[in-house]
Formats: sequence, C-alpha cells, structure tokens
Amino acid sequence: MSGNTFGKLFTVTTFGESHGQGLGCIIDGCPPGLALSAADLQPDLDRRKPGTSRFTTQRKEPDEVQILSGVFEGETTGTPIGLLIMNADQKSKDYSKIKDVFRPAHADYTYQQKYGVRDYRGGGRSSARETAMRVAAGAVAKKWLAERYGVRIRGCLSALGPLQVTDTDWDLVETNPFFCGDAQLIPELESFMTQIRREGDSIGAKLEIIADGLPPGWGEPIFDRLDAEIASAMMGINAVKGVEIGDGFDVVNQRGSEHRDELTPAGFLSNHAGGVLGGISSGQPLTVKIALKPTSSIQVPGQSIDVNGEVADVITTGRHDPCVGLRAVPIAEAMLALVLMDHALRQRGQNADVASPTPVI
Amino acid sequence: MSGNTFGKLFTVTTFGESHGQGLGCIIDGCPPGLALSAADLQPDLDRRKPGTSRFTTQRKEPDEVQILSGVFEGETTGTPIGLLIMNADQKSKDYSKIKDVFRPAHADYTYQQKYGVRDYRGGGRSSARETAMRVAAGAVAKKWLAERYGVRIRGCLSALGPLQVTDTDWDLVETNPFFCGDAQLIPELESFMTQIRREGDSIGAKLEIIADGLPPGWGEPIFDRLDAEIASAMMGINAVKGVEIGDGFDVVNQRGSEHRDELTPAGFLSNHAGGVLGGISSGQPLTVKIALKPTSSIQVPGQSIDVNGEVADVITTGRHDPCVGLRAVPIAEAMLALVLMDHALRQRGQNADVASPTPVI
Amino acid sequence: MSGNTFGKLFTVTTFGESHGQGLGCIIDGCPPGLALSAADLQPDLDRRKPGTSRFTTQRKEPDEVQILSGVFEGETTGTPIGLLIMNADQKSKDYSKIKDVFRPAHADYTYQQKYGVRDYRGGGRSSARETAMRVAAGAVAKKWLAERYGVRIRGCLSALGPLQVTDTDWDLVETNPFFCGDAQLIPELESFMTQIRREGDSIGAKLEIIADGLPPGWGEPIFDRLDAEIASAMMGINAVKGVEIGDGFDVVNQRGSEHRDELTPAGFLSNHAGGVLGGISSGQPLTVKIALKPTSSIQVPGQSIDVNGEVADVITTGRHDPCVGLRAVPIAEAMLALVLMDHALRQRGQNADVASPTPVI
Amino acid sequence: MSGNTFGKLFTVTTFGESHGQGLGCIIDGCPPGLALSAADLQPDLDRRKPGTSRFTTQRKEPDEVQILSGVFEGETTGTPIGLLIMNADQKSKDYSKIKDVFRPAHADYTYQQKYGVRDYRGGGRSSARETAMRVAAGAVAKKWLAERYGVRIRGCLSALGPLQVTDTDWDLVETNPFFCGDAQLIPELESFMTQIRREGDSIGAKLEIIADGLPPGWGEPIFDRLDAEIASAMMGINAVKGVEIGDGFDVVNQRGSEHRDELTPAGFLSNHAGGVLGGISSGQPLTVKIALKPTSSIQVPGQSIDVNGEVADVITTGRHDPCVGLRAVPIAEAMLALVLMDHALRQRGQNADVASPTPVI
Repeated sequence: MSGNTFGKLFTVTTFGESHGQGLGCIIDGCPPGLALSAADLQPDLDRRKPGTSRFTTQRKEPDEVQILSGVFEGETTGTPIGLLIMNADQKSKDYSKIKDVFRPAHADYTYQQKYGVRDYRGGGRSSARETAMRVAAGAVAKKWLAERYGVRIRGCLSALGPLQVTDTDWDLVETNPFFCGDAQLIPELESFMTQIRREGDSIGAKLEIIADGLPPGWGEPIFDRLDAEIASAMMGINAVKGVEIGDGFDVVNQRGSEHRDELTPAGFLSNHAGGVLGGISSGQPLTVKIALKPTSSIQVPGQSIDVNGEVADVITTGRHDPCVGLRAVPIAEAMLALVLMDHALRQRGQNADVASPTPVI
Repeated sequence: MSGNTFGKLFTVTTFGESHGQGLGCIIDGCPPGLALSAADLQPDLDRRKPGTSRFTTQRKEPDEVQILSGVFEGETTGTPIGLLIMNADQKSKDYSKIKDVFRPAHADYTYQQKYGVRDYRGGGRSSARETAMRVAAGAVAKKWLAERYGVRIRGCLSALGPLQVTDTDWDLVETNPFFCGDAQLIPELESFMTQIRREGDSIGAKLEIIADGLPPGWGEPIFDRLDAEIASAMMGINAVKGVEIGDGFDVVNQRGSEHRDELTPAGFLSNHAGGVLGGISSGQPLTVKIALKPTSSIQVPGQSIDVNGEVADVITTGRHDPCVGLRAVPIAEAMLALVLMDHALRQRGQNADVASPTPVI
Repeated sequence: MSGNTFGKLFTVTTFGESHGQGLGCIIDGCPPGLALSAADLQPDLDRRKPGTSRFTTQRKEPDEVQILSGVFEGETTGTPIGLLIMNADQKSKDYSKIKDVFRPAHADYTYQQKYGVRDYRGGGRSSARETAMRVAAGAVAKKWLAERYGVRIRGCLSALGPLQVTDTDWDLVETNPFFCGDAQLIPELESFMTQIRREGDSIGAKLEIIADGLPPGWGEPIFDRLDAEIASAMMGINAVKGVEIGDGFDVVNQRGSEHRDELTPAGFLSNHAGGVLGGISSGQPLTVKIALKPTSSIQVPGQSIDVNGEVADVITTGRHDPCVGLRAVPIAEAMLALVLMDHALRQRGQNADVASPTPVI
Repeated sequence: MSGNTFGKLFTVTTFGESHGQGLGCIIDGCPPGLALSAADLQPDLDRRKPGTSRFTTQRKEPDEVQILSGVFEGETTGTPIGLLIMNADQKSKDYSKIKDVFRPAHADYTYQQKYGVRDYRGGGRSSARETAMRVAAGAVAKKWLAERYGVRIRGCLSALGPLQVTDTDWDLVETNPFFCGDAQLIPELESFMTQIRREGDSIGAKLEIIADGLPPGWGEPIFDRLDAEIASAMMGINAVKGVEIGDGFDVVNQRGSEHRDELTPAGFLSNHAGGVLGGISSGQPLTVKIALKPTSSIQVPGQSIDVNGEVADVITTGRHDPCVGLRAVPIAEAMLALVLMDHALRQRGQNADVASPTPVI
C-alpha cells in the first residue's frame, strides 16, 4: 500500500537506501521446486551494476546478493525468499552541500513535501540504486518463466538522443555497453556519449523490451490488464516518462484496416498490437518501448531553492551516468518478468480448469 | 485480483456485459459527508454516451445511473456506494455470424483462450460499454477532489490521424464532438471523419488530460508511483497503446540541462516532468497524453479464423464509432480522478502528521 | 480496504443498507464453466430469510436474488457476477425516536464516531440484513467446492442459552427452526424460546460448522492461515464474540500427549486439531464453533444517551429475533465456503506444479 | 497473498526459517517522524526469547535485531524499515531421524502436502521462531500507538491447564516467567510445570490481552472489522485454537438485557462487548482472550508415519517449551498492536474529515 511491494500473487517487497546499510527484498509466492542459487541472480545484477564501462557512474558496488531464506537443498520451498545486498561504498561523505537543497529533476522536493523528512544521502530511497533488488527478484521470475513456460525476455537500445537503432542483431546486444544491436551505430554512440560526458551534460534514451514464448490467456480483463500492469511496471522505473505497447503512439495515424492484426489458420499476419488484445496475451511476442529522461545529476550549474524556499546553488560533483537509460535494460527486463510471472500464477489460480489450454493457433 | 477492481483505498469494482442486463459498480472508501446525487454523475455519462453526434455509434443507450446505497439524506455516509445502469438496447439480435468467429483486433480470441468460454454478444465484458461505470465512479472522485482540494481535471483532443491540435482553447473543447480546442482544426476534423466513415474505416487519436490544483506529496515512492498508477489507469482504457507523462517520448532527445525543471522561490521554471518527480506529485499541473488505436469494428472486410481454427469471414455491419478516441476523453478524465483520489486518501493515511503540509513553493 | 470486500482471489464486495433501495454484491474471480442460476442461490437465502418461524423477526422480505452479469447461457464466464436483491419492506416509517439515540449493544454509537454520520433506519449498513449477500455469494462457492472437490459444508446448533446439544443427527437439522439435530432437545428449545420472547428478552447461541471432503494443502502458512481466515470470517458475522477451531478452548487443559492427533497408515487417529495444522488443511474434517451474543433489540427498557451525550430512553417496538444465532447457520456456512474457495484458488495459483497432489493418507 | 504479509496500510512481511541463516521483515507504511532505534525493539524480543527460565526451551538465541533501513538520524522517514536477526544457534545437527517423518500435531504433514517439499530442520518456516519478527514489528506499532494516541497494550496469563488466574495485579505480571498477575498462583504454577516437564509432556494455556486508550471509530464495518482482524491475528499465532472478544463464549448463556452495555452521559456501564460494537472500537478497553494448545514436541512416544505413508516412530529429544503459551504473551501483544496501528491509519485515510473527532462520551 505504501508503494514498496510489487505484484499480487508473486510479490516483491524491497527496502533500502542508496547510502544506508544495504538493500533487501522479500519475494513471496514463488512456487516450490525451482532450482535456485545466488549464481542465478548475479548475472543480471552485474549487467545493471555501475562502473562496468566509462559511460556509467564509477561508484564501486559489487552488488553481491545473498539468499537468506526460502531455498533449501538448492530448491525453492514455497516460503518467502529473503535477499540481501550490503552496501560497500558507504563512506561518510560530507553532505552539507545537498542536505537542505532540492536538486532539480530529482525527488528531493517531493519527498520533503510528502514525508516532511528525507534521507538526503545520495537520494536515499529515491536513488536508482534501489532497482538492484528489482533486478535480483526479476531474475527469479525470468528463470521460472523460462523453465516452466519457455518464455524469453530481452531488451535493447532503441534510440539514444538523436541516434536511432534501425535494426537489432540480438547477438550483438550484450557485447557493448549500450545494449545496442546495430553494429554500425556503436561507434557513433561512443563518440556522442563521450561528447555528452565532456560537456557535463546527460541525454535521454529509448529502450525496447520483448518477451516471446508466452501462451495466450495471461492478463486480467478490465483493470489489471497485462498491458496496464506492464505500463505501471515500466513507468515505475526511475526516469521513465513514456510507455508504448506494440505500435504505441504510431497508432494515432493508423487506419483500422491497417492496424488490426488479421488471423489465419497459420497464425496472426502482423503484430501491431504487440501481443496483447483486450488486456490479455495473444501468444504473439510482447513488445514494449519506454522513454527515459536524461540523468538529473549533471555538472551544468542550475537554479534551485533550499528547504526554506530561498535561492540555492546546485553543484553536482563526481561522475554520474551520462545516460541512465543505458543501465535500465536489465531493470526493464526484470519488471516485465515480474508482471508476467504474477499473471502466470493468476491465470492458474482462476482458470486452471479451462477446457482447452491448447491455443487454437 | 481478477481485474475488476481499481484502487486501494478508494476502490471501484465493476460488473456487466455489453448486451447483458445492465452495468454496475461498487465504490468503496468514499469519505462521508460528500453531497451526492445521480445528477452529479449524469453529465460525464452523457459526455461519454453513444449517439450524441454523427461521428459516434448510433446505439441508443440513455445510460441513466441509479445510486442504490451509500448516500443518505443527500450525503455520502462512508459505506459502499452501489451504482446501476440497466441496459436499454438489449434486443435479441442474431449473433450466429459472430458467435464462433474471432474478430481481428478485438479481444474475442484472447478471452476464448483465457476462459474457454465467452459472451460473444457485442464483445460481452470486453466492450467499451463497461467504461460507463468508470465514468460514473470517476465523477464521484472528481467532485470530492474539487470540493476538498480544488483539483480540476480536464481532457481534450491532441491529434486525430494526421491532424494535430496546435493550441487548445479550453472554452472550445466541450462545444464540438471532437473535444477539440483548436477552432481552425474543427472543419478539417469534420471532413476527415466524414471521409473515414464513408470508407467504412476508422482512425486513431491522441488525447491530453491535465489535472491542476493538486498539492505536492501525492503518490508512493517505488512501485505505486503516481505516474505508474496513471500509466496503468490509462493503458487499461480500451484501445490505448501508449502513455506519456510530461514530455513523454520527447525526453529521448533531450539533454539533462534542458529537461530539468529548475526551481526558484517563485516556483518551477518549466514543467517537462509533467507534475511528477520520483513518483510523487510536485504541485505542478499533471500532464498525461495517451494514444488510442483505431476502432476495431470496421466495414472493410478482413481475414480471420473461427473457434476451430478454420478460415472465417469477418463482416461488420451496423455503424460503429469511426474513432473510439473521441468518446475516451471523459473516460480518461475519470481514470485520472480515480488515481488521484486514491492517492489523496493514501497520503492522509500514512502522512497525516507530517509537520509542514504547506508547500515550500 | 474499507471493509466491504472479502477474499483475495475469489472476492465478494457487498453494498446496501437495511432500509435502502436494495442489497447487492459483486463476486469476482469465479472460475468459468460453473453451471449457475438464481435457483442455486435461493435455497440458502430462504434458510436465512426472516419470518419463516415464530422464533424469528416477522419482517417480510422475499429476498429474491437476480444475477445481472457473469453468467452466459447458464454458465459462469469468469467475469464478475453481479447480484441484486431489491428491498420490499421499505416503508417510510417514523424514525424520529431512534434518529438521535444510540441503542445499546448496537453499532449506532461506533458508526457515529467513525463516520460523523449514519443511516439510522433499521441500523443502516450495520443491520444483519447485509448478510443476505454473503449467503448468496457463499452459495456460489459452496456449489463450486462441491462440484470441483466434493467439499460439503453444513452447520447446526450446538447450544442455546443453557441448553446443550449433546449429539447431532444431521438428518434432523433442517427440519426445525433451530437447526437442531438433537430430537429430544427440540421441545425444550421451543418452550425456552417462547419464554424468552414473552419476556421481551433475547438469548445467545453456539453453532458448529463443519466442512468435509477438502484436500490437504489449503491455507497459507504464516498470516493468511486457513484457521486465521476462518476466524476472521466468523468473527465478522454480526453478533459473533468467539471462535474455536477443533477443540478450541478445551485445549487449555489438555496435555500434549492427549491433544496431538497421531498418524497411522490408515489416517489420523483423532481430530483435536479440527482439520488444520500450521494453518494448512490436513484433509480431516474442518470443525469450527462460534458464539453469538443475544439480540440487541429487546423490549426490556434500558439506559442510553443521544448524539448530544444526554440521557435518552431506548424503547424497542416491533418483533425482533429473540435469538440471532438461529438465522446465522447459513451465514456461517457461507463464510466458511468463501474462505475455502479462496484458498482452493490460491493453492492452485502457487502450487499447481506440486509433484504429488495425492495425499499420503 | 502467499501468507507472509500482515496488514494493509501498515504492512509487515516476514521471511526466515528456524534453522536457516536468519529472520527478517520489512515494515512498510510506518509514518515518518517516529523516533526509533533497535533499543526500542529489543525489550519485547527479550520477553519472547527462549532460555530465560527453566520453563522454556534452552535453545540459545540472543535475537539481536538490526534496523537496516527506513530510519535516518534516529527517526523513521516513511520508507520501508528492514529488520534482520541472524540465527546464532545454527549447528549442523543430524536431521536424518525427522527428515522423512511427520511429527504429530506439527505442520510437517500439511507443508509436505501443500508444497511437495519442506525444510525439515526444526520445523523450518512453521517454527514459532518466525514470531520473533512479529514481535519486533509489533514493538514499532506499540511505540507509535503509545506516542500518538496513548494506547497501552499488555497481556497476561489467564489459565494454565487446570490452574485459573482469578485476579490480575499488573505490577506482578512481568516479574515471573508465567506472566501471571496472581501472586498466590505462582507457586502452584511452578510445581505444576515442573511436574509436566518431568513427565516429558506439555500443557495448554489461556492468555488475556488488553488494549486501552484507543479512541472510538477504529475498525471497518463489514469484513475488516476490528474484532475480525484481531481474531485473524490471534488465530494466526502458532498453537492458538480459540479467540474471544469481550465475554466470548460466555455470551451463549447471556440474556440481551444482561449482555448489552448501557450508556450514560458518564460512559458505558459495563464492557461485555470488549470494546467493539459492529466491528468498530467503542473507546472502551479492548479485551481479547486466546487458547493455546500444548506444545507438540514432547518426549512421550507417539505413532506416526513417514513420507511414504509407512509406520514411523517419533522420538523427540532435547528440551522444548512444556507450555508454548508462556512465550506467547509478547507475540499476542504484538499482533494486537499491528491490527490497531493498521486501523488507526485506515481511519485517518478515509475519515480524516469527520466533523467531530471528539467522542461523545
């Protein structure tokens, strides 16, 4: 209710602040019998963690996750899975400069208004550092979905500033710090990002996340639609300002005769809908696109006020991600996995009896 | 859990099928003491109802709502408010042509796969007719938000097919069937829509919804962010395929120095964020844009299959909305109202004690 | 959240006041494919309805239920089931005597303090009349549990005032207005109740509810234990002040060697636990006992105050149930059915894969 | 949903097994501004912890709790509070004797049936050790309730086997290992318990928990009644088999004229209702009684079966609590605190506007 739990049958509740003692989460509702160890979670955490290229923040966080419960003799038992990452880079910095100032585009002002108090160290709870736990929990969901249903979830860069990915070779995506599957674009991305970083500025990005292999029938019909919950999951990622399913905003200028995905005995003829009809999966690939705003912490000076409403200078020092979008691919994949797993369980709960589980097409 | 309830503290649970006996909902959690009668709900229902112009479906539905409980001597009592609209246009048509066929871009196929059975009459539960109840419930929330906090929620057309609204005069919006606030565009919209209808085709649309007057501090910080729940509410409206908050997808090509809304003692200097920072309202106007796909029921013949997976013709007869987007303005306003009211109550629940309820700016 | 919804996967949300226009509920999460009509719900409603013997209130309410949605061609479709009972006995009585007075042992005082306003007609929302909807919804759950799992739920009188049922012949239970299965006790109950009624007073009762046929494995382990949710369901029935599972308060003076239900290859040797171990069903009969306080509306004059805190006379006129416990058997059965159905669906959601669904014993 | 979260606005989600790495919980929804440190939680943990007298198990667990998040500069911030207790007594015992055997009256059999797998070490998740986290979270709620509303929650022994507490002197309760406020009974309890322990057997107990100082108006009216949620909270404590509010099962033989608590301008004349009317607090002391079954782990040999359904011997070695009821007082207090705090926040959320927050009496 207070916003730190995601999901209904497969729930993830997280805690922890950027510069606190550590981050943790409790996964409740994981079915028993899934082989699981910390080694299953670490790869996605490593894909998200800072300091892996010169285009991300240089904060040193090994982000080593421990499983504290819910796994016995290498398998999940159906009881809650407690995960913990202790913070390493927790030096007692001098925060006097930011203590009373609201950094523009950050959540400083809104947290102060909401709670009347805030942990100002590194953004506290509003830091993107919190997403480490979403990634860890998402890795559990990804594994279950893959083993139980053959669902595969993957994401890539779609655009960075003015640079558009025209075609994605999935074999390339994990070989560069941009999650870019367009070989020709990579050198351009490098020089563009170097330039942005040199200017002390930042840039937005667009990502695409695709899930394939899921059966038709997942998602609820009116309010908890699969696409609605995906939209919530994605808009809930730090910096995301837009979400599209299938053709997204392109539908504004489409005709009905163009948009509708016709059916034949061999399957759908197109996938403008992005794998969801009436809030329920159609069995086609689920395609999601998201827009991420440029990093808020930049070295370009800006105007702001302090907690007393008086003019204050904002000076950001240290190196930050010049594009937060770059580290968001594993986060968005994780969130999509959490939504899908929740709906897989919900579909089983209500509709396990449904006569024909075999898709017509 | 099964998708027919919206909200957490202010909840709306709906029932009813397009061609069933009626539609209803239960609003739970409405604070006591709100003056309320059916006359407060009817205006928004009338804005949504079919048959008000030649650009919408000609189905005759007076959509007259009754309040069955929760209001005593003209005021809400804090107990659940039961609403009911009986269906008028419930003729026993011959459904044999659509009974076994999956209409493309409709939810026929996915409902069949999910439940193994479906009410095929007029789309059953998946019909946009269900949104009447969202509009009725939203009107309760709108009234409470206006009276208690001075919040105003309104929506308008932003684009229809290739035609873009360049500037909105709010006084014009409710004077034409397009919710268009751009006087010069109205004749173009009329001729464009007449052409689309003549071709038996349909077209997409883009809407903008704005809430102003809300205080800072509404919204939860991690998963139930205000923007995340708005995204869910909007993506859950039939035909919506994209949602933007503030600058939306334009942020992809923005620099941090351009996007951040700087603060001064007189207030924010811009509103690229659209009124939300870190998932919590900043007190600036909340701006939301949504993309709606073209109506799926068109007269252009298309390919499909039947429940046995065999080739079937899809022939849509009768007149349908050539642009579902046109009737979605009151629905989107209602959904935004439901989200805001829920968060208003949540903020009071957890943070009623917060020292300074007065915004700094 | 505001207390009008029961259940998590199979949810029932009710509305309506005692002397309002009607009562209704929405059942969400009922699996598709259950044959259902109003005739399935009416028998339990008739068992609960007033005026069936001289030992219950003489208010005339046919309590005829309509199904407004969620059933198509005689079967549930998986979409929400809307139920409605319009109030018949809704005469515009003179309420001036009770308008401002708090009747002792009723909820008048607490509703006034909670909401600052209340519908005083017949107790408004706090009237036991609201339970009609629980009974209707429970009948759906009972039917599904019986057809899908062979679960049978039934209740009977266990004690009425000082009169104890010593042995229950289930064939007798439905043949008398006391739900009493003890032939010898029936004449005593009649004369005792006649005496109580003549004195204008009322009396408490104890009921026993038993479910058999349920498989092991239903219930969650820590907080949503099967017994915990049953306790909540039962204590939530108007007038209930105590709940026991299995041996209940008798365990206080039991030794571990006496209480524990030993296991043999042929099954458990006893059922002190009442069918639940660690919050999860064991497959043994689920046994529940509840205590109901005497009816609060009696003709014996009593002291009270009015809304201004001043001395007020309380005079109850008309005939009320001298023992509310008598009409509570179908209510308690219904609540038990709602709990069990919810847990049946939850078990399928999380643990549908569990290797051996066959009980060891 | 999977049973490891308690509460709706003030939620507590726990994890951890008896012999796993540790126990933890996340408290979400704690209002900001509460002074809090581990020292506030430790006293109740110490009251619950094993090994404090010769009448409890001798397992050595310091149960030292750490606060990992949600508290900054000594005050809660409104963000989730992560708590952790690492297990000390985690020796790699030989579990081969109990691995495949279902211990009678334990949850071994039901967990196996539910999940198909279980952590058999010390009962795993079903061990009462899990309640340490409930006690820690309850201490947060107790502190907030006391500081914000002046609510005091305390519990004591009411009966142990055949020995009844006739009158409670609260000053005595915390001075003996039985939480007994009846000076004369203490020597009897000592000799009785010594005898039980010598026989290798165990005994049941009855506890009473009282909250005073709470305002009228807490609790929801139909399903989430204050008494219903208390019943759930109490029945969810390991070993509890019965719950009473106010006069409990004594109401069966009460007349309406005796049971009803009459009102005068000076207040209620009695408290048979136990502080709740219609599910909502009346402002009178909330009185709750619970029955706890005798400890299941005893040295008296008993019959059982193994996972293959074959006859197995059950031999319990080591020293266990001869009466689990003795350590349950702080647990029951904690659960009552969790319910009350949740309802305090819910009342503020929905009814913060209510005209007269001052009780009439």
